[in-house]
Amino acid sequence: MHVMPGRITIREVADAAGVSRQTVSNSLIHPERVKAPTLERVRRVIDELGYRPSNAAQTLRSQRTGAVGFELNATGAGHRNAVAFPFVLALSVHAAAHGSHMVTFGTHDARPLLAGYQDMVRGQLVDAFILADTHPGDPRPQWLDDHRVPYAAFGRLWGRPDITSWADVDGHDGVGQAVRHLVDAGYDRIGFFGWPSGSAVGDDRRAGWADALDAAGMRPGPEGVSSQRLQPALEAGRALLDRIGKGSAIVCASDLLALGLERAASERGWRIGPDIGIVGFDDSALAELAGISSVAQPLDAVADHLLGVVHERLAGGRAPDTGALFQPRLVARASSSRDPHAP
Amino acid sequence: MHVMPGRITIREVADAAGVSRQTVSNSLIHPERVKAPTLERVRRVIDELGYRPSNAAQTLRSQRTGAVGFELNATGAGHRNAVAFPFVLALSVHAAAHGSHMVTFGTHDARPLLAGYQDMVRGQLVDAFILADTHPGDPRPQWLDDHRVPYAAFGRLWGRPDITSWADVDGHDGVGQAVRHLVDAGYDRIGFFGWPSGSAVGDDRRAGWADALDAAGMRPGPEGVSSQRLQPALEAGRALLDRIGKGSAIVCASDLLALGLERAASERGWRIGPDIGIVGFDDSALAELAGISSVAQPLDAVADHLLGVVHERLAGGRAPDTGALFQPRLVARASSSRDPHAP
Repeated sequence: MHVMPGRITIREVADAAGVSRQTVSNSLIHPERVKAPTLERVRRVIDELGYRPSNAAQTLRSQRTGAVGFELNATGAGHRNAVAFPFVLALSVHAAAHGSHMVTFGTHDARPLLAGYQDMVRGQLVDAFILADTHPGDPRPQWLDDHRVPYAAFGRLWGRPDITSWADVDGHDGVGQAVRHLVDAGYDRIGFFGWPSGSAVGDDRRAGWADALDAAGMRPGPEGVSSQRLQPALEAGRALLDRIGKGSAIVCASDLLALGLERAASERGWRIGPDIGIVGFDDSALAELAGISSVAQPLDAVADHLLGVVHERLAGGRAPDTGALFQPRLVARASSSRDPHAP
Repeated sequence: MHVMPGRITIREVADAAGVSRQTVSNSLIHPERVKAPTLERVRRVIDELGYRPSNAAQTLRSQRTGAVGFELNATGAGHRNAVAFPFVLALSVHAAAHGSHMVTFGTHDARPLLAGYQDMVRGQLVDAFILADTHPGDPRPQWLDDHRVPYAAFGRLWGRPDITSWADVDGHDGVGQAVRHLVDAGYDRIGFFGWPSGSAVGDDRRAGWADALDAAGMRPGPEGVSSQRLQPALEAGRALLDRIGKGSAIVCASDLLALGLERAASERGWRIGPDIGIVGFDDSALAELAGISSVAQPLDAVADHLLGVVHERLAGGRAPDTGALFQPRLVARASSSRDPHAP
């Protein structure tokens, strides 16, 4: 049994000749480095098996032009970036269709740093990168441009409208969907639980809430603010519940904020859904576990788009004319139903 | 500014000659494919820059022998395998120290399948694999052995004592640490909340509980059983709390079971810690978020060991004489303290 009926691999040549694959490779590319009897044996096996030497180099080259690096680091704090792991999965699943494969690298540091990118470029281990966790002042796009390394970013490159190699999820629209869903469910007062203003992503989501309420002819409900940690979210959630009162609903900028709010409501005996409607953002495992409605990011579509952009650049093509904004999708669960018998 | 002062890269040659890197590579390995004027230009640039042609092939080869595949699939269900993402991070961080880099691949299917491995081997994209989610009857080790592809597994290869290329975490010891911690904290009745018997990992953790109680001269407390889902864990947790009563403690086979139990206790108004001690397993983001004591797996040490095994095999060395069992570490939080004022 062999994996490649009909095509001889360098491994088969190595096995048949009783040498390492590196020796076969040397025999092809650097014959001067291989001892004469070994070289003769390898060449005989190559003839016998009908191995086409160019295969090896071709494979090496085609492999090189498809290696796409992706950094894992800030994303390592799984609960603070709930989509990091599903996104790596999506990239890994879709890479093959773009003639690519994903090479992950990382540090335990919290922030994307240039050092890891430099190492990967220096080692010629990748030909392009997918970036995540872009942020204002992010040095990576400029550095990669300077070094002519293609990349595409998950997340808008805020403040750099000249860079178009990105895909993002329309958080404004996602929060708007959540508001309309809650209006349809019969909640007549809808608040917002977000992060301190100043973050591009957070401000965009908050605007989605305000704009959707405005379109529905409703006044904005109370707002709460917390950092992306459970204990602060629990404490800010308590204060927000005091102000909004029973029977209202709250759209949250993340599933983690929603979870803190849900705990604050549960500890005072409020039923999630009937007594307080809650919708999170990201549709993470947390939301699914806790039965909290949420806004799902279309990670497969984003990954597919970004790999396409990189593929085009590696093939010598241009950057896209514009970035790509994908619509998220509301996933309704019991936490946004006023019916106490909702599943 | 250039990333590699002192060493000329194929990219610099390509840029200086105004050709693609592939053309430079062709000029070196397949000059017959390159048009004469281009070939002459590339060769002139190579001479001018002092580029050593062997670098290219060396880089290609050294890259090939360091590509280690890791499948993401069953592991995609983040909350059912809480260590999947931190483990990928650990592999990605430690790979470079072993002259390796990680290539991730995956499907949306739930179970490890041979198809993905075949594709990666056929495409010569990796030289070795790290396996996770090993299970009885797992076809991958035999298939990889048949195809002489080196691998190392996170998880014992239960039922295959002849395979020694693995590292695992001593769950028996970890649960024992949890029991001793709860005894020291003053709980005099300690139950266990696990999975249905028959899973090697689950049975090992349950035995760790029973053995540690025996060593402490205590009788085993009540036991509960649930699948690895929150709703069943909540329901089984309610029944277990009915039987064990206030003031006891429960060691759980996973953080998810611990979370279900914590919800069951919270909904009846029991204080977590003073009224019911809870310890989970995996020290996942869930446990940290919910303030639940847990048993942390030493993922950095496991990743480092497995990459070392693979490196040794790729260098022509043998498999290790035995697998490696790493001790986990208890992370104590308020959920296992009888002091109501614990942080």
